[in-house]
Amino acid sequence: MACCGGCLCCHCCCNEGDIRTPEELTILGETREDDDDEILPRKDYESLDYDRCINEPFLEVLEGLDNKKARKYEAIKWILVFAIGVSTGLTGLFVDFFVRLFTQLKFSLVGQSVEDCSENGCLALSLLELLALNMMFIFISSVLVLIEPVAAGSGIPEIKSYLNGVKIPGIVRLRTFICKVTGVLFAVAGGLFVGKEGPMIHSGAIVGAGLPQFQSITFKKIRFHFPYFRSDRDKRDFVSAGAAAGVAAAFGAPIGGTLFSLEEGSSFWNQALTWKVLFCSMSATFTLNFFRSGINFNKWGSFQLPGLLNFGEFKCTDGDKSCHLWTAVDLAFFVLMGVAGGLLGALFNCINKRLAKYRMRNVHPKARFIRVLESLLVCMVTTLVIFMASVTLGECRDLVSTINNNTSTQGSVSEEVNSTIRRFFCYNNTYNDMATLFFNPQEVAIHQLFHQNATFSPVTLSLFFVLYFFLSCWTYGVSVPSGLFVPSLLCGASLGRLVANVLKINFHMQIYSGTFALIGAAAFLGGVVRMTISLTVILIESTNEITYGLPIMITLMVAKWTGDFFNKGIYDIHIHLKGVPLLEWETEVEMDKLTASDIMEPNLTYVYPHTRIQSLVSILRTTVYHAFPVVTENRDNEKEFMKGNILISNNIKFKKTSVLTRAGEQRRRCQSMKSYPSSELRNVCDEKVVVEPAEEGQDMLQQMLERRHVPYPNLYPDQSPSEEWTMEERFRPLTFHGLILRSQLVNLLIRGVCYAENQSSASQPRLSHSEMTEDYPRFPDIHDLDLALLNPRMIVDVTPYMNPCPNTVSPNTRVSQVFNLFRTMGLRHLPVVNAVGEIVGIITRHNLTHEFLVAKLRQHYITI
Amino acid sequence: MACCGGCLCCHCCCNEGDIRTPEELTILGETREDDDDEILPRKDYESLDYDRCINEPFLEVLEGLDNKKARKYEAIKWILVFAIGVSTGLTGLFVDFFVRLFTQLKFSLVGQSVEDCSENGCLALSLLELLALNMMFIFISSVLVLIEPVAAGSGIPEIKSYLNGVKIPGIVRLRTFICKVTGVLFAVAGGLFVGKEGPMIHSGAIVGAGLPQFQSITFKKIRFHFPYFRSDRDKRDFVSAGAAAGVAAAFGAPIGGTLFSLEEGSSFWNQALTWKVLFCSMSATFTLNFFRSGINFNKWGSFQLPGLLNFGEFKCTDGDKSCHLWTAVDLAFFVLMGVAGGLLGALFNCINKRLAKYRMRNVHPKARFIRVLESLLVCMVTTLVIFMASVTLGECRDLVSTINNNTSTQGSVSEEVNSTIRRFFCYNNTYNDMATLFFNPQEVAIHQLFHQNATFSPVTLSLFFVLYFFLSCWTYGVSVPSGLFVPSLLCGASLGRLVANVLKINFHMQIYSGTFALIGAAAFLGGVVRMTISLTVILIESTNEITYGLPIMITLMVAKWTGDFFNKGIYDIHIHLKGVPLLEWETEVEMDKLTASDIMEPNLTYVYPHTRIQSLVSILRTTVYHAFPVVTENRDNEKEFMKGNILISNNIKFKKTSVLTRAGEQRRRCQSMKSYPSSELRNVCDEKVVVEPAEEGQDMLQQMLERRHVPYPNLYPDQSPSEEWTMEERFRPLTFHGLILRSQLVNLLIRGVCYAENQSSASQPRLSHSEMTEDYPRFPDIHDLDLALLNPRMIVDVTPYMNPCPNTVSPNTRVSQVFNLFRTMGLRHLPVVNAVGEIVGIITRHNLTHEFLVAKLRQHYITI
Repeated sequence: MACCGGCLCCHCCCNEGDIRTPEELTILGETREDDDDEILPRKDYESLDYDRCINEPFLEVLEGLDNKKARKYEAIKWILVFAIGVSTGLTGLFVDFFVRLFTQLKFSLVGQSVEDCSENGCLALSLLELLALNMMFIFISSVLVLIEPVAAGSGIPEIKSYLNGVKIPGIVRLRTFICKVTGVLFAVAGGLFVGKEGPMIHSGAIVGAGLPQFQSITFKKIRFHFPYFRSDRDKRDFVSAGAAAGVAAAFGAPIGGTLFSLEEGSSFWNQALTWKVLFCSMSATFTLNFFRSGINFNKWGSFQLPGLLNFGEFKCTDGDKSCHLWTAVDLAFFVLMGVAGGLLGALFNCINKRLAKYRMRNVHPKARFIRVLESLLVCMVTTLVIFMASVTLGECRDLVSTINNNTSTQGSVSEEVNSTIRRFFCYNNTYNDMATLFFNPQEVAIHQLFHQNATFSPVTLSLFFVLYFFLSCWTYGVSVPSGLFVPSLLCGASLGRLVANVLKINFHMQIYSGTFALIGAAAFLGGVVRMTISLTVILIESTNEITYGLPIMITLMVAKWTGDFFNKGIYDIHIHLKGVPLLEWETEVEMDKLTASDIMEPNLTYVYPHTRIQSLVSILRTTVYHAFPVVTENRDNEKEFMKGNILISNNIKFKKTSVLTRAGEQRRRCQSMKSYPSSELRNVCDEKVVVEPAEEGQDMLQQMLERRHVPYPNLYPDQSPSEEWTMEERFRPLTFHGLILRSQLVNLLIRGVCYAENQSSASQPRLSHSEMTEDYPRFPDIHDLDLALLNPRMIVDVTPYMNPCPNTVSPNTRVSQVFNLFRTMGLRHLPVVNAVGEIVGIITRHNLTHEFLVAKLRQHYITI
Repeated sequence: MACCGGCLCCHCCCNEGDIRTPEELTILGETREDDDDEILPRKDYESLDYDRCINEPFLEVLEGLDNKKARKYEAIKWILVFAIGVSTGLTGLFVDFFVRLFTQLKFSLVGQSVEDCSENGCLALSLLELLALNMMFIFISSVLVLIEPVAAGSGIPEIKSYLNGVKIPGIVRLRTFICKVTGVLFAVAGGLFVGKEGPMIHSGAIVGAGLPQFQSITFKKIRFHFPYFRSDRDKRDFVSAGAAAGVAAAFGAPIGGTLFSLEEGSSFWNQALTWKVLFCSMSATFTLNFFRSGINFNKWGSFQLPGLLNFGEFKCTDGDKSCHLWTAVDLAFFVLMGVAGGLLGALFNCINKRLAKYRMRNVHPKARFIRVLESLLVCMVTTLVIFMASVTLGECRDLVSTINNNTSTQGSVSEEVNSTIRRFFCYNNTYNDMATLFFNPQEVAIHQLFHQNATFSPVTLSLFFVLYFFLSCWTYGVSVPSGLFVPSLLCGASLGRLVANVLKINFHMQIYSGTFALIGAAAFLGGVVRMTISLTVILIESTNEITYGLPIMITLMVAKWTGDFFNKGIYDIHIHLKGVPLLEWETEVEMDKLTASDIMEPNLTYVYPHTRIQSLVSILRTTVYHAFPVVTENRDNEKEFMKGNILISNNIKFKKTSVLTRAGEQRRRCQSMKSYPSSELRNVCDEKVVVEPAEEGQDMLQQMLERRHVPYPNLYPDQSPSEEWTMEERFRPLTFHGLILRSQLVNLLIRGVCYAENQSSASQPRLSHSEMTEDYPRFPDIHDLDLALLNPRMIVDVTPYMNPCPNTVSPNTRVSQVFNLFRTMGLRHLPVVNAVGEIVGIITRHNLTHEFLVAKLRQHYITI
């Protein structure tokens, strides 16, 4: 009689693993036995609500909405995406300006000191100067990350998770923004092997999330009345736009940025949204471009410097007809370089993963200042390596003669490139090649590798690659804001340049070294991050040369496929290490052997359309689920149903039911499943699964698996129905009516939306849509509720506030279909409803992660 | 007792409008009254099946599938997209080569003759020569279109419809391909104002659809055993890739091509697919590039000529520091040009629409050769205009002096551009500006407008614009394969160049004329076609200059918004004229006042899981629907249900039921709806809709509308249930179990899948997945079936072959949600299922077209 349940809609907010049900522990335990250090998706991440909930308050808003107001709303969106683009561009400008300022200051100071000391022999002093400056910068950066730990790293894993639909706490807050932007500035200025591109993307995303809200949690005073876009759906759209703007500002690649957002975020291609995202990206690129052209060249009004990182112009001199950027023959080398890039990228990821795990075990549990010490250690080693390599390992290469040699094939180097060479201890028109690469900002080093005609010595390039590879691998994961794009590009470019050198000098081939450096950079970067479409487009846009499309794409494809053979991309690895339940693009083919009923959570905590406050409070306080199905008991005897009060009082009882009763409940539910899809077909199912009539301890999953072999029962039976089961025996079916979120329920309680037992439900106060969403994004907790203010006997009618028509699936839907629906429509809860409208389970993101599916599939194989 | 129905799952294959139900005629009639020449979406277009149907034959395939086989399958896909790309590239090469050949032949012949005749005064002879050549070419082209009428026009409306999910007969056949490719070649060579870019896209799409099938309807001998990809889903994916390859080959824009496919086709962004599409586009671009570089410049192995249409290089000379391609100030002019482009584009579309309607009424019904005559007429007029304008209207502009004047601002013109000027009657280093534009291939004219420093006279530009505008407007729609991109670009470029001239000469502004010509071209093209993202990217890629991103985007945005104020894009207009039920991106906000039950088709023709052959044949022969829900009657009395035979024999009866009985059925169904969402709630509904207890003639829609105002009934009633309705009175509920397609049913019948009444259904022969899909894409018709071979008393078990878990929606789902689900998941039939699992209606594409929704909304407003 007791309405049992006590089950999982959506686990959350509890770091301990002990909320897992015994079955799950069995499933997950099996995985653990195999690879003991495997990290499983954590259950405490929430999903975003991308699905629209059209309930009564929303309909009221809708009634007042005509096309004119809709156009106004649309116009506001356009203005906002423009504002997001401009703000992101300005953020990029800010970072760029100060990085440039600090770096120039540092290098001119130390460079001068080295020049002086090379005569006086006081190099140790120069080194100390450099060390002091760098460590000061890194200290500031690291302390900022202590304030807001989410600001560490590149932020791309977090943004990727967010766009995938996972809420990560603190990721889009103003405080994070400030720490990230300032932190990355000092990290780059401090000479670490980190880029500012990843953090730019994160910053853009925060701007996108925060700006349209016109309020801040960090600074309570920032709060305007702007009651629009108070939903996860709108927020996620704006975050897409912001992230795209970040990419656009970082690389000067508006199309690449848009594709990045689409690739990572929306499996759902909405033209209107995409168009806005592209506009936002364009705004960001050209804002940055406008101000940088103005500030750096004093050419206000022109647009000459696209992104923070640009690769310069690849071109043959006009007079030289035999020069090609690349030819069909080169493609073969590009494929080989792709393989090499994939292998090295996989190695990089592997080392970095082990390092990250080591950090998680040995550094993170300790006091926080240990992390600062680690950053300072990395900084010190990096500085020492830079300095020592520049001073001792460089070769003096002939500047003029090499230019003369190459003029015929490659034309004149631009003044800009030559102005940044370093001459440490080299005289007579020679330059120190190692110092040129190490003793410059990283962007300059990339330009040198791409466009400097004077060759670097093979030894220098190899040494540079090895040092950079290991140092940047160590650095990524240290607690400073740190991008990975620029270090990877530099690594790869040195390798590509090495290949070009070998081909040119040893095989006397007519090639364009810059192209090889670019392809090398693409190969290594592709091997590390494993991005596909967006990375191709970003690189094409950064080179501003459409003819590089094919070689870049082929290299990236080969690098990705080679790397995927060994491990996942670096961002996916870090997402995995964080335990984020990310949904991939599609499920493997084998997963189609499972159905929705195999993977769903069959235990449900539900509410009735009209529930007493005491029941609601009890449910909310004793469970952690984020949504509750609204159900009615589907009794055959209508008279019994009409004693409605029983339902209400019953609801409180099930909280006290023992595990045993719940097990009995499960058994009964299971038997009702046997009689699935509708009660009329019960006897047929029974006919096929004769073995276990009503064994008490029977595992439920077991029975479900057996049921799968009867995907559709014979509807033309010639037997009489089995009289074995009485109506009482069968599980009480729950007709599904809608979903209500925890936040909505708490809101109703706090605002006193209820009516007395002797009144009609029409007397219940009505909440408007803006009242329902006022507290977004941080809704009050049930534990903040003052129980003394509530009359526990009052009744709440949840029907006007629930989502009356969420998407549902039938229990025998294949996993690929479920996955497709869930991911494409951006769902959070997917009720599994059988053919007669009874809810039999719920699927959330956690039921669709790769790990969970693999565990279920293994169980499926064991069972059969 | 009789199972009635006889209703619409999906209308098709009947051109007559008389299959519309009376309600629909009422609805549509209302629309007609308003604008009498409004064309309504035709009901005879089928949808594609993008949704996967995982039934038992498919599961058998799945059982044998492991990850290794899946990888092999994936590899085949990659090889195929590569092949599609290469083939599309080669097609482009073929067209380009012959167009170039014929055009060069023609112009050298006629040009020489003009040069000679300008002395001898035999210009009439030159004109006759030109006329004869052009009319011969156009005659061939036009006759080819007679053979396959679908090959007329640009093909973009058709491809857009196909990618949107509408099957258009003959659109992807080999015969169409041959006629299109050869036809466009002659149409362009014949001097009509048509481009070859649109037809390239269509050709690419056909290659994509046809190549992976390895068989042809046109040439029956082409038939290899290749049993993969025999489904609409795979075909549509390949068509996306092919269309993208077409764009890529036409414009040298692989990214733009990919975005075109995404924008037009998949609302669904699938990373794996997108990556393949991009690869396909790249293959196409670089295949074309490779061969053209080899053939035209004899530089095999290099890649110098990206697409069929490219815009040349926009750049300032290196020495000139004050030259900018564009500055912030220019943006204001670009916005104004965008407005102008939008207005002119709207005018163009308006004229073309009227012309197309005129053609539909007065030309198409007549004999086919009339169309050939029209083509010849257009050709004659065009040739006359070209010739007369070149000879009489041109101005002799000074070539050297203008170059000298402009050197300071713009640098030297490339030799290539100067080599194509025409000197008709102009001597002493002057040239005839009108002849230069008119007496050259269109691509050359575009290059002249973009890159020729020597200015064209404002009069020439204006005249050129006006002539081109009207002639190309007349030409688009004539029965030859004809693209619209190049004529639009030329129109716009001349306008842009005019603006540049005015600004330069009258206001002495320092501007780059090429940019203004480009922006003018973008503005006009944007005003005509109203594409957004993909067009932006295509133009950026064609210019190979990323810094044009912002101006192009802003211009296109403004042009689109301005144009949308007046009418739709030209492709949408033609789609509309064809009556294709295209689904837009999203519904208007107001539509959310409707729910699924308002727009669904409530009359259903259904089948039972086990049905006698005679019933099936009867259903298939007397209806035209493409899918049938598989249902069981959901009786409360199980004993009655067990007399299963009744179901089977009943099924045949309902075919004889009169309209009256069906009306009664409707009424009863409607009353069951009142008792929706579950029978327990019936009395509550009743309480609110007391007015009409059981009026016989009550309109069903009326009642549904009233029901909307009770979106969720009170579940806490204190009344006893109304005893007014008996169980018999209430409509017999149909529990929904799955969907089966007409083609599947016919297939089952033809292959004799059935069992005798006294046998078990297990004795029914089983069909494999390849047997089910063998006849794709042209499944046999029910009328081909030899009834003599069938025993009408045998029973067919359809359950293993139906789609057991299609997506469903609840009746009170809002239209925006329904639309979103339908469009995003690429559905064909969307059953509407109530809270107790009973099917109450079906939604197809036709229920979601803008016109249908508007009519329903109007009805909604009238009712309330």
